[in-house]
Amino acid sequence: MAMTGILRPGHTQLRVLDMEESLNHYCENIGLIETDRDDQGRVYLKCWDEQDKFSLVLEPSDRSGMDHMAFKVATEQDLWRYESNVKNFGIETKRIPAGELKGCGERVRFVAPAGHTFDLYAEKEQVGNGLPTTNPAPWPRGLKGMEPIRFDHCLLYGNNFEENFKFFTEALDFQLTEQIVDGETQLAAFLTCSTKAHDVAFIRSEKSGQLHHASFLLSSWEGVLKAGDIISMEDIPLETGPTRHGLTRGQTIYFFDPSGNRNEVFAEDSYVYPDSPVLTWTADNIGQAIFYHSRQLVESFMGVTS
Amino acid sequence: MAMTGILRPGHTQLRVLDMEESLNHYCENIGLIETDRDDQGRVYLKCWDEQDKFSLVLEPSDRSGMDHMAFKVATEQDLWRYESNVKNFGIETKRIPAGELKGCGERVRFVAPAGHTFDLYAEKEQVGNGLPTTNPAPWPRGLKGMEPIRFDHCLLYGNNFEENFKFFTEALDFQLTEQIVDGETQLAAFLTCSTKAHDVAFIRSEKSGQLHHASFLLSSWEGVLKAGDIISMEDIPLETGPTRHGLTRGQTIYFFDPSGNRNEVFAEDSYVYPDSPVLTWTADNIGQAIFYHSRQLVESFMGVTS
Amino acid sequence: MAMTGILRPGHTQLRVLDMEESLNHYCENIGLIETDRDDQGRVYLKCWDEQDKFSLVLEPSDRSGMDHMAFKVATEQDLWRYESNVKNFGIETKRIPAGELKGCGERVRFVAPAGHTFDLYAEKEQVGNGLPTTNPAPWPRGLKGMEPIRFDHCLLYGNNFEENFKFFTEALDFQLTEQIVDGETQLAAFLTCSTKAHDVAFIRSEKSGQLHHASFLLSSWEGVLKAGDIISMEDIPLETGPTRHGLTRGQTIYFFDPSGNRNEVFAEDSYVYPDSPVLTWTADNIGQAIFYHSRQLVESFMGVTS
Amino acid sequence: MAMTGILRPGHTQLRVLDMEESLNHYCENIGLIETDRDDQGRVYLKCWDEQDKFSLVLEPSDRSGMDHMAFKVATEQDLWRYESNVKNFGIETKRIPAGELKGCGERVRFVAPAGHTFDLYAEKEQVGNGLPTTNPAPWPRGLKGMEPIRFDHCLLYGNNFEENFKFFTEALDFQLTEQIVDGETQLAAFLTCSTKAHDVAFIRSEKSGQLHHASFLLSSWEGVLKAGDIISMEDIPLETGPTRHGLTRGQTIYFFDPSGNRNEVFAEDSYVYPDSPVLTWTADNIGQAIFYHSRQLVESFMGVTS
Repeated sequence: MAMTGILRPGHTQLRVLDMEESLNHYCENIGLIETDRDDQGRVYLKCWDEQDKFSLVLEPSDRSGMDHMAFKVATEQDLWRYESNVKNFGIETKRIPAGELKGCGERVRFVAPAGHTFDLYAEKEQVGNGLPTTNPAPWPRGLKGMEPIRFDHCLLYGNNFEENFKFFTEALDFQLTEQIVDGETQLAAFLTCSTKAHDVAFIRSEKSGQLHHASFLLSSWEGVLKAGDIISMEDIPLETGPTRHGLTRGQTIYFFDPSGNRNEVFAEDSYVYPDSPVLTWTADNIGQAIFYHSRQLVESFMGVTS
Repeated sequence: MAMTGILRPGHTQLRVLDMEESLNHYCENIGLIETDRDDQGRVYLKCWDEQDKFSLVLEPSDRSGMDHMAFKVATEQDLWRYESNVKNFGIETKRIPAGELKGCGERVRFVAPAGHTFDLYAEKEQVGNGLPTTNPAPWPRGLKGMEPIRFDHCLLYGNNFEENFKFFTEALDFQLTEQIVDGETQLAAFLTCSTKAHDVAFIRSEKSGQLHHASFLLSSWEGVLKAGDIISMEDIPLETGPTRHGLTRGQTIYFFDPSGNRNEVFAEDSYVYPDSPVLTWTADNIGQAIFYHSRQLVESFMGVTS
Repeated sequence: MAMTGILRPGHTQLRVLDMEESLNHYCENIGLIETDRDDQGRVYLKCWDEQDKFSLVLEPSDRSGMDHMAFKVATEQDLWRYESNVKNFGIETKRIPAGELKGCGERVRFVAPAGHTFDLYAEKEQVGNGLPTTNPAPWPRGLKGMEPIRFDHCLLYGNNFEENFKFFTEALDFQLTEQIVDGETQLAAFLTCSTKAHDVAFIRSEKSGQLHHASFLLSSWEGVLKAGDIISMEDIPLETGPTRHGLTRGQTIYFFDPSGNRNEVFAEDSYVYPDSPVLTWTADNIGQAIFYHSRQLVESFMGVTS
Repeated sequence: MAMTGILRPGHTQLRVLDMEESLNHYCENIGLIETDRDDQGRVYLKCWDEQDKFSLVLEPSDRSGMDHMAFKVATEQDLWRYESNVKNFGIETKRIPAGELKGCGERVRFVAPAGHTFDLYAEKEQVGNGLPTTNPAPWPRGLKGMEPIRFDHCLLYGNNFEENFKFFTEALDFQLTEQIVDGETQLAAFLTCSTKAHDVAFIRSEKSGQLHHASFLLSSWEGVLKAGDIISMEDIPLETGPTRHGLTRGQTIYFFDPSGNRNEVFAEDSYVYPDSPVLTWTADNIGQAIFYHSRQLVESFMGVTS
């Protein structure tokens, strides 16, 4: 098959301050589904149309932020190949045993140059998407909230930007799809390991290892309206939207979880192939690049990370 | 990058009886864009969001049907590798020189077991999607008709079904995503070379090398309504729709070009990864598999090909 | 205010064979909300965005069909004025005491020339739409099924077509919005008492007093897709759709309740004023008039009533 | 028929600084259709689905703002009745002869207490909506820009708020649908003469006779996205949106014409009857009342009028 190596963002683990409030946010309001808990107090969630056991892990903590983001690779061989690539790039790796996250196989962990912890893994328990694999309906009844389809990507702020970019594109085989540049300087890089406009994206920052947002896919622009309605009804802090991104053309809305972690839900309007031209947005047009309609950055959008 | 080998359906060449009528159909009503003509009288068309010079070639003929379908591969090496794979499978190949189709590189041609002619190629002139690669708008103004985004896939009827399936999955690395089965017999196979629910699909038939339909992607279900309206306004023969497919969950409408070639325009609602479970539809439920809402096959849908 | 006299279809009372199955259909699948029951075994339902206590009454019976359809008038004076109009037209009226339907004021009942029983009433208990009247959200959480907004209209088959038309337009002040004609003969009349493309519609028939369908409004074409999905998931008999009507431009899907009463859910795409031109559809084009996309009548659509 | 008296906003006449730029804005970008010009240099425009000759008149001027807003009444008798009502309310009227605006009958003109000039008229030439009245398609091909359906309403800022409210509800029979109140003080009144959530709305101001915006109806939320895209592509000053209003639930986007007149395009999600409860928004919640998602007023929204 044509898809090999790193397949997709498999999950992210976010730190949350109050688990009950967080579950209300992620399950009742966004609409993820709880699939398990562990003795560290972590709660495992998935979006309805994901086959794997979880795509979001909430970890009780006294601070917000992202513990790690993990990618699923196609095969065990890919796992060891990328472990070797990472080491050859000069970055230490460590192996996290299977089962440390329930249902997840052995993970190869490393800290990328921009300061974020990433895991790769080849196995995760499949629990299905709530539909049979024989004669399935298009969606299961009883979905909640914004009805997200899948965990889609993270946008991350970090330093060592050039080295991080080199690491992702050379050691991990990601493809640059879109970028923001200021003259010769790349300010943002949107990277895919698939045909999505981004599976992970990085913004140049002086701080290391920051989470800008974790993003979940909706099925349509009408879903973005519904999300905005729920955000207001439930008194969730909105950052901005509904709007469209210039970058990726995504139809989007941004808001915060109760711990201050930023979330996005969006509907996709783009796709890439290895031979797609890189799309470049210029720093003098950064407002339109990010918020296509207003053409103005929201101050918090550039400043607040977790 | 994670996408390698065969990337996508690059184009199909359809035979049409009356070029003027056909261009009115494909350009004014569906909304493809003419990019070139050649001295064989062929006309080259593309959907707006494709980068390559063409994705549909209309060939003047005295009968309808598909001349060939072509896939773009990632690299020249992939081209020779697949040429070798095809030969090793026991199928003859021939090389069509670069430029035989304007803007297209050398092609490797073969007839698959079900009787259809396929080409592989590694190069095609990129003419862009009508938007700059720096600070692009999300879409260009002046789009026409149903505003299709891309040529998406063909559904083909043919014999030697098992061998053809083996050929596509083993020699060409396609992945089975969904199928219709009657007991142990596979009646239909939906195959991807990417993350789409299908890049090509085959239906078991006694006839060899038949085209069921060529399909173009729309951006939303609202686009399917608009397509239905245009079909009626312009007195285009409708087969069925708007409706949803069980298979792939696509939101779809079927109709015929003036030569009797079947077209589909649809909005996608699905995606696959190499580890996605194969979805199986059973023959006793074939109506729902194909037309999810009515759960009844339209007679022509199973019978008419070109 | 500019709206006077007969305001809207206030409710319809349908006969159902099995109340439990019917409630599953109307409440779980379509998504109406039960508001009361009475000692005749009748169950009162409303759509979420209606203020009044009920808009659909299910009556246990051994046959399907419509018991009556009722219109709300603006004032008590209007009620007596229309009672007088009806009598002057030569049709008997009778008064049904307040409370015979729980929460409904006194009704003036009569049988229109086409054989259907209609009630007029000026008062019905308002229970609200589930939202406060101060700082209301745009919709309440917890909606079910197809999430219909309101009971919208009935389409009725009946004889004495000309007299019935004269009665509705002259005695009851309805306005003709659209019609199907065969030469000089009016086959269908769509009638409004408001700015809707129809509040009630009649089809010429040899039978008296038949129900073709009761219709509920959805908020969008995306809702029609969702309705189609639910119809298939829940194994509800579909008649046709999703499609668009030529008449009224409505975006529609038709199906049957467990007793064989036809339902429609639709999204509206039209509006009229008293000075809007009457739109005429010709009998030779009746397929397109009714099902705009296929331009073909479904046989059952013309034949089956309850 | 149930609709009597004042039927709808028939047109507004806006002052524009540069006619060519303005026509590009209103015709190419918003998508109105030019129907005539007169020897005062005024240009007559209509939305596609309006039957009447024009609904927007652009008047060349050296300042922006609204010259007048006009309502169509059902009959000549209504015209004289309202003329009398206005006079009885103590407001002077004057008659503007038929033909002063091309295709428009005699108008009764007056200045309402909040300082805006209004006209009533009973006749306007009908030019149709681009579709035949026999077997019409649901929409005509060749629509441009945002494809607005109709001129829908104006929102006006003015003083003498109480008297103006009394005038509209008592002399002109408008119905209050929604309001913003600060304790006992009404800050905003949304008024209908039909079943729309508003045909005109007033905001309490110290200034007399100001235009806040003229609004055009779109067919769906997807249209609001397309409008936002066009606004950015064409470098039109955006105020805010896409978003939803709390008031009226409208799905909306605001922007400015080249002269500084504010425009709205929106999709409607509400309807009223004479017995609908008045919806009240409290001043402490004014952000959510106006921009439901952000719950924050945009500064310009309250300050800038023309």
